[in-house]
Amino acid sequence: MPQIELYDTTLRDGAQTEGISYSVQDKLRITEQLDALGVHTIEGGWPGSNPKDAEFFRKARRLTLRSSALAAFGSTRRASVSAAKDPNLRALLAAETPVVTLFGKSWDLHVRDVLKTSLEENLRLIEESVAWLKRRGRRVVYDAEHFFDGYRDDPDYALRTLQAAVDGGADTLALCDTNGGSLPSQVTETTRAVQQRFSTPLGIHAHNDSDLAAANSVAAVQAGCRQVQGTVNGYGERCGNANLVSLIAILKLKLGIDCLPDAKLKELTEVSRFVAEVSNMAHDAHQPFVGETAFAHKGGVHVNAVMKNPRTYEHLEPGLVGNQRRILVSELSGRSSLVFKAKGLALDLTKETPQAKRLLKLLQQLEHRGYHFEAAEGSLELLLKRQLKQFKPFFTLGGFRIIIEKRDRKLTSEATIKVHVNKATEQTAAEGDGPVNALDNAIRKALLKFYPALSEMHLTDFKVRVLDEKAATAARVRVLIQSQDAHDSWGTIGVSENIIEASWQALVDSIEYKLLKDQAKRA
Amino acid sequence: MPQIELYDTTLRDGAQTEGISYSVQDKLRITEQLDALGVHTIEGGWPGSNPKDAEFFRKARRLTLRSSALAAFGSTRRASVSAAKDPNLRALLAAETPVVTLFGKSWDLHVRDVLKTSLEENLRLIEESVAWLKRRGRRVVYDAEHFFDGYRDDPDYALRTLQAAVDGGADTLALCDTNGGSLPSQVTETTRAVQQRFSTPLGIHAHNDSDLAAANSVAAVQAGCRQVQGTVNGYGERCGNANLVSLIAILKLKLGIDCLPDAKLKELTEVSRFVAEVSNMAHDAHQPFVGETAFAHKGGVHVNAVMKNPRTYEHLEPGLVGNQRRILVSELSGRSSLVFKAKGLALDLTKETPQAKRLLKLLQQLEHRGYHFEAAEGSLELLLKRQLKQFKPFFTLGGFRIIIEKRDRKLTSEATIKVHVNKATEQTAAEGDGPVNALDNAIRKALLKFYPALSEMHLTDFKVRVLDEKAATAARVRVLIQSQDAHDSWGTIGVSENIIEASWQALVDSIEYKLLKDQAKRA
Repeated sequence: MPQIELYDTTLRDGAQTEGISYSVQDKLRITEQLDALGVHTIEGGWPGSNPKDAEFFRKARRLTLRSSALAAFGSTRRASVSAAKDPNLRALLAAETPVVTLFGKSWDLHVRDVLKTSLEENLRLIEESVAWLKRRGRRVVYDAEHFFDGYRDDPDYALRTLQAAVDGGADTLALCDTNGGSLPSQVTETTRAVQQRFSTPLGIHAHNDSDLAAANSVAAVQAGCRQVQGTVNGYGERCGNANLVSLIAILKLKLGIDCLPDAKLKELTEVSRFVAEVSNMAHDAHQPFVGETAFAHKGGVHVNAVMKNPRTYEHLEPGLVGNQRRILVSELSGRSSLVFKAKGLALDLTKETPQAKRLLKLLQQLEHRGYHFEAAEGSLELLLKRQLKQFKPFFTLGGFRIIIEKRDRKLTSEATIKVHVNKATEQTAAEGDGPVNALDNAIRKALLKFYPALSEMHLTDFKVRVLDEKAATAARVRVLIQSQDAHDSWGTIGVSENIIEASWQALVDSIEYKLLKDQAKRA
Repeated sequence: MPQIELYDTTLRDGAQTEGISYSVQDKLRITEQLDALGVHTIEGGWPGSNPKDAEFFRKARRLTLRSSALAAFGSTRRASVSAAKDPNLRALLAAETPVVTLFGKSWDLHVRDVLKTSLEENLRLIEESVAWLKRRGRRVVYDAEHFFDGYRDDPDYALRTLQAAVDGGADTLALCDTNGGSLPSQVTETTRAVQQRFSTPLGIHAHNDSDLAAANSVAAVQAGCRQVQGTVNGYGERCGNANLVSLIAILKLKLGIDCLPDAKLKELTEVSRFVAEVSNMAHDAHQPFVGETAFAHKGGVHVNAVMKNPRTYEHLEPGLVGNQRRILVSELSGRSSLVFKAKGLALDLTKETPQAKRLLKLLQQLEHRGYHFEAAEGSLELLLKRQLKQFKPFFTLGGFRIIIEKRDRKLTSEATIKVHVNKATEQTAAEGDGPVNALDNAIRKALLKFYPALSEMHLTDFKVRVLDEKAATAARVRVLIQSQDAHDSWGTIGVSENIIEASWQALVDSIEYKLLKDQAKRA
């Protein structure tokens, strides 16, 4: 099979998910990860629809992308204005992306009831909008919205809309199952019919309303589509989009299509979990290929069989997608990546040292309890140095108390704290906008006289994620703090059933990391 | 297309899900629901593998089932004993079910590495076990474990195992994709090959390890399978089984197979949510057909189009499966969606009333401050009713105080609270795993004596999202709580700079929504 273009729309269609709301910073972080993974095209947003997306494209220009081309998304021009005056098309151009994805109507029902224009006028809108962008040097992907529904209702008209895009010069025709109602057999048949008519490369954009998004995408590829659109973890409105994570694994491992190098495929699990984290969504433990239980074996018979020969109950080797079998006791690849990490921190650790084995076990235990060091390298460095006895704490805690009181609709939060630095003791108190802020204010106030450099740093991000959400308010929470000073930015983490304890761990790490970093610089 | 047998294995394969553990009572309740829905066969458990399942079958005899036949599940006899002496076969018989489902090995790899017997001996085990049960009057479904893997490795041997079951008298041959690694194209091809060889009706049992379980089941039906096995909500080991809820909807609404009466189909959403509740699993909001957001629309353009003609963005009428359209009221949407929402709540509001304008403005202000009502319909309903003076609070807060103390590495959280209900006052205190849990425990303790129905509800999800993350620990936070009882699931929200205040708002709404809902039901 020939090459396939992996096209990600997490930042546009995925951002429509109920509950997801990306900051520009979130979008930039996800873009970098997708580029590192090797996705070919990243749809960053709809610059004509909201100022946040326009800002994303401005800032994205500063990124150095190695594998990915950015795409801006928007609609064909309005019937009332010329292409040159259409604000949406102008915003697409202003995004300065190599790729522009333009969606238009393929379904007569939509042309009549939503666009409220004539079928002929719609064809003109498509052709002219595509041509206008082509003349300005863009690669144009034409997203044929509701293509499969349109083809079912009026195949001739649906094909004419594609012809209009081709006449405008479209580089790819992406067939969209916008409402997610098609069956694989229908996708196969329709794609073949289109394939016979046009030599322009085809794409597939599927939604999961019928639990068939992955299958519809696979069917389209088997029928000749060369571009596969999807979102990380299948995020998207209603029931979500086709899950690009599943599709990458299927294309590569089931269909033998070399869409990503083997080494990149191993990052699939990490990328899936990273995007969940940034999206503030729980990572689905049962998610195919990359879920925590995707290769978990329970019950003596299965476990025994798997120990004898993993193929007995595993459809593929979990390591291929960077996941792991859950009954594994130790993992060599884990140890070597730990050694690799330690080397980066100039710590003395080799694969053979007993310390490496012990540290790996500790890390696995902590990750099992909900720590997530990929997003908290500051805490990881402190952990390794503490364990290797290469760290002397800058202070110790005598204790703290926080009182939150609600009376007459007013809520107050006050923290008192006692810390020891060398032989001195400092006791102080502070108020704040909530318990964590009060504690943050109090610890800084207490330490500032010993470490004036703390005034240079500040917290830039504070994320709370509830693990094991079923335990509701008694659930463990993971707090991630991002801090920065004039030179660096670092992440720290805390995990506990108590949000105050988790925040405290992350706060302490963020302060100690700053002090350690300054100390190393002076040395 | 001819009739299809719906075969549910929630109580056996679904019970393998990590986190699910059914009591006998749970199993009986689910059985009654599946029978009421009209599922044809219910696999109740593996009586030879654990005493709980044997007890289930004993108690199930007392149920009066209208639509369903019960099936007991087990393996072919061991090589070392005769059928009559095999404890597993005897337990199957003792279950006294009209149907027995017997699984055997189709894959030479399993025969050699797991059974550790000869290929010929395996054929004898299959034939004799089936025949032994047939002679005792059972309908026998033969589950050909790993059939698709076996057929890939050694098609001739895989077919011989089916022949052995047929020779023993099997009534149905269910082809199992036990490891979930097959593609629909492979399932189609293999099923057709089997179909050509045997006149015995075929079944399909698919797993979701490749995100293709629903599609593989559909492909098998299109290739001639007459029995479809699955679990409610796709529960099952690793990545789960084929989701029977999706399959019922696809068979009936997409393939036109009359597997359930129209009136029963409308119960699909309720059954799906009921089973989630009994399974103590959060119901997946994005689940195809029956999820809370499966027919949710957001954003002016989509909402406008759907109001004009729902077909524009819905692949089917949500009421057909007992779900409903939800117009997400968010910043983006206008007065008309608010009016639509109010109508659903039987509130008197039209587009022209000044109240509509005022409410919309209020909603926009709240959304701007970080409220996110699309994920918190419970809070939205309370807000509208409070604003329209159609709500009388069930209690008022006198005040609360939370003390969090850290001394000697130990952290404690205690909440004291005072509430007024009518003219009574209740003051109490509780501890918890953190401040919110302590507060949650205290408020429930205080209200339970006035409202015993609160013991029926519980929180299933607790999400914290930091808004404006740059303000770090002083940032506003949004707390989303999901609650459920046996009938419904509802979301509530709170926003504040203080996480305790935000949690408090969401907690109060979750309790008041439950009480309001019960009141409306009684009225």
